[in-house]
Amino acid sequence: MTASRRIVVVGGVAGGMSAAARARRLDEHADIVVLEQGDFVSFANCGLPYHLSGEIDRRDSLLLHTPATLASTLNLDVRTGHRVTAIDRDAREVTVQTAERTYRLPYDALLLAPGATAVRPPVEGLDHPAVHALRVVPDVDALRATVDGLLASRDDGDRAAEPPTAVVVGAGFIGLEAVEALAARGLQVHLVELADHVLPPLDAELAPLLAEELASHGVRLHLGAGARKIRPAAEAADYGEETVRPAGPVVVTLSDGDEVTADLVVVNVGVRPASALAREAGLDLGPSGAIRVDGDQRTSDPHIWAVGDAVEVVQAVTGATGPVPLAGPANRQGRRAADSICGRRTTPQAPVLGTAIVRVFGLTAAVTGANQATLRRAGIDHEVVHVHPGHHAGYYPGAEQIHIVASFAPDGSLLGAQAVGRAGVDKRIDVLATALRAGMGADDLAELELAYSPPFGSAKDPVNMLGFVAQNVLDRTMPQWQAWELDEVREGTLVLDVRSRGEFAAGHLDGALNIPHTELRDRLDEVRDAAGGRPVSVHCASGVRSYLATRILRGEGVDARNLSGGWLTLTAVHPELLEDVAVRA
Amino acid sequence: MTASRRIVVVGGVAGGMSAAARARRLDEHADIVVLEQGDFVSFANCGLPYHLSGEIDRRDSLLLHTPATLASTLNLDVRTGHRVTAIDRDAREVTVQTAERTYRLPYDALLLAPGATAVRPPVEGLDHPAVHALRVVPDVDALRATVDGLLASRDDGDRAAEPPTAVVVGAGFIGLEAVEALAARGLQVHLVELADHVLPPLDAELAPLLAEELASHGVRLHLGAGARKIRPAAEAADYGEETVRPAGPVVVTLSDGDEVTADLVVVNVGVRPASALAREAGLDLGPSGAIRVDGDQRTSDPHIWAVGDAVEVVQAVTGATGPVPLAGPANRQGRRAADSICGRRTTPQAPVLGTAIVRVFGLTAAVTGANQATLRRAGIDHEVVHVHPGHHAGYYPGAEQIHIVASFAPDGSLLGAQAVGRAGVDKRIDVLATALRAGMGADDLAELELAYSPPFGSAKDPVNMLGFVAQNVLDRTMPQWQAWELDEVREGTLVLDVRSRGEFAAGHLDGALNIPHTELRDRLDEVRDAAGGRPVSVHCASGVRSYLATRILRGEGVDARNLSGGWLTLTAVHPELLEDVAVRA
Repeated sequence: MTASRRIVVVGGVAGGMSAAARARRLDEHADIVVLEQGDFVSFANCGLPYHLSGEIDRRDSLLLHTPATLASTLNLDVRTGHRVTAIDRDAREVTVQTAERTYRLPYDALLLAPGATAVRPPVEGLDHPAVHALRVVPDVDALRATVDGLLASRDDGDRAAEPPTAVVVGAGFIGLEAVEALAARGLQVHLVELADHVLPPLDAELAPLLAEELASHGVRLHLGAGARKIRPAAEAADYGEETVRPAGPVVVTLSDGDEVTADLVVVNVGVRPASALAREAGLDLGPSGAIRVDGDQRTSDPHIWAVGDAVEVVQAVTGATGPVPLAGPANRQGRRAADSICGRRTTPQAPVLGTAIVRVFGLTAAVTGANQATLRRAGIDHEVVHVHPGHHAGYYPGAEQIHIVASFAPDGSLLGAQAVGRAGVDKRIDVLATALRAGMGADDLAELELAYSPPFGSAKDPVNMLGFVAQNVLDRTMPQWQAWELDEVREGTLVLDVRSRGEFAAGHLDGALNIPHTELRDRLDEVRDAAGGRPVSVHCASGVRSYLATRILRGEGVDARNLSGGWLTLTAVHPELLEDVAVRA
Repeated sequence: MTASRRIVVVGGVAGGMSAAARARRLDEHADIVVLEQGDFVSFANCGLPYHLSGEIDRRDSLLLHTPATLASTLNLDVRTGHRVTAIDRDAREVTVQTAERTYRLPYDALLLAPGATAVRPPVEGLDHPAVHALRVVPDVDALRATVDGLLASRDDGDRAAEPPTAVVVGAGFIGLEAVEALAARGLQVHLVELADHVLPPLDAELAPLLAEELASHGVRLHLGAGARKIRPAAEAADYGEETVRPAGPVVVTLSDGDEVTADLVVVNVGVRPASALAREAGLDLGPSGAIRVDGDQRTSDPHIWAVGDAVEVVQAVTGATGPVPLAGPANRQGRRAADSICGRRTTPQAPVLGTAIVRVFGLTAAVTGANQATLRRAGIDHEVVHVHPGHHAGYYPGAEQIHIVASFAPDGSLLGAQAVGRAGVDKRIDVLATALRAGMGADDLAELELAYSPPFGSAKDPVNMLGFVAQNVLDRTMPQWQAWELDEVREGTLVLDVRSRGEFAAGHLDGALNIPHTELRDRLDEVRDAAGGRPVSVHCASGVRSYLATRILRGEGVDARNLSGGWLTLTAVHPELLEDVAVRA
């Protein structure tokens, strides 16, 4: 038997630990050392917000493994508090620093899983003790202690007092989870987001649904605004220069001039690859600073592999390269790297779709593939389709509307999809992510054979419906107009609103002609007269009745187009329509 | 403008009505006549059991459209109570019979959507008024009236009396829904199934989960038994030869000799294509009696199309042809036929996967693709993989185990999948149905990028896990043994149980060696001694710990195999193990 080789893994969470475990399963005799600079390995990163909220009550639940359990089950040598400070590629050794000492550790194969570091936004006062992150276990410990303290001091005193206040900076996935958790604990939460809508990866027409849900749970939104400065609410002079500044409250000054007094601040404005060690070792990095790897997760050094948030991946649809900090790909990269280290056939990594999901109170939002902004930036020609089907058969009680937006190439290929709703969103995005991975298009979605019985779906599932509508759009059976073309539409066409008189009375576009779709065949002359040769821009509430109307008109030779997603999507893109007295006529 | 053509549709439910509606949307001027022999069109067939249970309270909810709404929205001429008795293909006319008259109706295009008829099992006394079906609206009306009557008469009288009793014959999808509905109404239900397990399309190792759920809700199972005879419980002599026989109760005699006295009987043992009209018109039928159609749903007569339960489809995986009575394919076939009739490009019909789902009290069971019995019958080489992952991250509260069985070809292609569990089953089967349609294999499942946050899934989704395990099985990283090989395994190998001492004490295989997996590295000699050169058959509860143990042993040169699905699957296949005192040692 040959001497056992040593595999050294730097970073003991998702990708690194997946690699170490897989390596052991493939090689019983390797010497496998995991070096983790933090105090915890293999913790449930994505569970932190739910420990903050209290849903995951026991902190131990977050610690999926300990060095002891990893030794007993997988014979891994896991060392926490061991930070790798340098890689000597010629000698194949890493330099490791602990609280007590520095040592060198030789390796045969080195796997880097350093993860990402939080982006530090340009905010004055970020080092104030009231400012928190939500990235690792100590973060959630500190946040829980702070929230517990705030609530306890309130319980002791004036029960009628205002609740403690939190400002969450950054309305991305983790930011929204933090908002939900803090609100669940009873805090008054302010959410500050530099972009003009919450969850910036989401298409603009879906974001208002989340904004409404947040507002209905008491969250105060500050969109299009950044935090600029955080200062103690009490004057510094009260404490003297040498005094430790108070933990809170603080005043957060926003870029729009607003000031919010808060007991705590959570900052989460994104991450960047933690690739300093790799860079210093001279490994190839991409322009984003992420570590370059091949299909086997191997870096530019044949003895070094890298996985997780720190590596560059190819993004599906656009083919762009860059880091994508997601747990799923990280875990699978770890497995692939171990396969490669152990000389196994590796499963080729498919381009990353960026599938992601977040719960925001009663709503779920999920995305896969390229969003519209990405497609526009990349100059990729696409048609956008909006549908709002029920999550199961409408005749079975409890059907909830799912709002789906998807983009298709002119040849019908699916490019990306997003959905928001109260039920069944995760299922449809997972089906669409699978379809996207398979290179499916509108015809394929139309023909997918999904499980149907009334509690679970419809004979024509929302995904089938999306396919049907996309087919109709792409083959010009149903030309459409988009909510963001409203100005041109009002200027150059007749707007025909085919909803009922009651719906029309509750709010409509100024100048629109209202003919309920069931009366259209008998009132074609009115349409022709009003249009006066202009095209007709039809709409209803969701796009279904107006599709029928569009087909009637086109069958009669009228140049009619249907509003994609109907009044629902129109008012999401133009919320002013719901406030405008003129449209309520 | 040319004279409008006439499209005649025979059958006004799923496929027929989809075709009629799509034809109108594509051709505003066609004369479209829908002839339906029953009293209802476009009713929610799949909703009938939920109206019986009371979940869908209003009968109107089942009637998605009426002739009046179809006239006003789609300008369709819908005629209920009009039965087509003959097709004159030369004259292109159908003969239509109503209660009052017979007439001939010319067509340019004829679409047949006659559906299926219930198989009438060879049971004496089936015409007894206590015997019901559950296929159309009048069936559910009658069943509800009967159940209401039984419950009302009980309420008036002895409240402590036994509940009314129902016998459901046939434990297929609709049979199970009927059982659930009748039990929800408070009836004592007996379920009679000729096969040796409930839901015969389900693989044998998953069916016991459903059987247990049924039993825990008070349902009495009669498996491997058929109904033979139904006779009035009261002696016929009491009523005299000319007397109308009483509506109930009846005595149902089973093939195993059991007799069950019941107030009502629901018979649902499958359907066959209603192709008599097509056969009499000389259209080509397949050996199953289903109507032959091409990729455009066109029959052997170029002026006649056919869709739905009466037509022959190609089944995915096996390539076999035959009818598949499912709502989803019927609806899409209707759309395709209309496209063809209107001269449009048609979406090619993919082979039918047979994706189906049923809720059985708190459990969901779902299938897609070929089951094991089908693969065996077709002689298709395959590996079967069992996994039992949680439906979302285990550290987030409320994770429910999903029991998944899937079959893979030696090249890794997915052939079929089935799942049973309390949550998340529909999502995984829909993803697997999409993967199957795309021709994906184990490598693809391993790399699928599905939506993950703790409330919705895991970083390694159950579908990814299935892919990982299948990869390990197919490349012999983890050779496995199957529960149905238990006799050979006990005879020729050492059974190594790597569960904890406590789990072992609660029940184990006679003669098994127990070494908890964390102790295995230190106790290899014990394994070698006990094996005495025989292979080692490892198992744990679900297959995860025993996978680690199998890899340790194989790393040490021991010929070890892992039990697919672990003790969970083993005891499902061999329920006697749970009763056998010997194994509880």
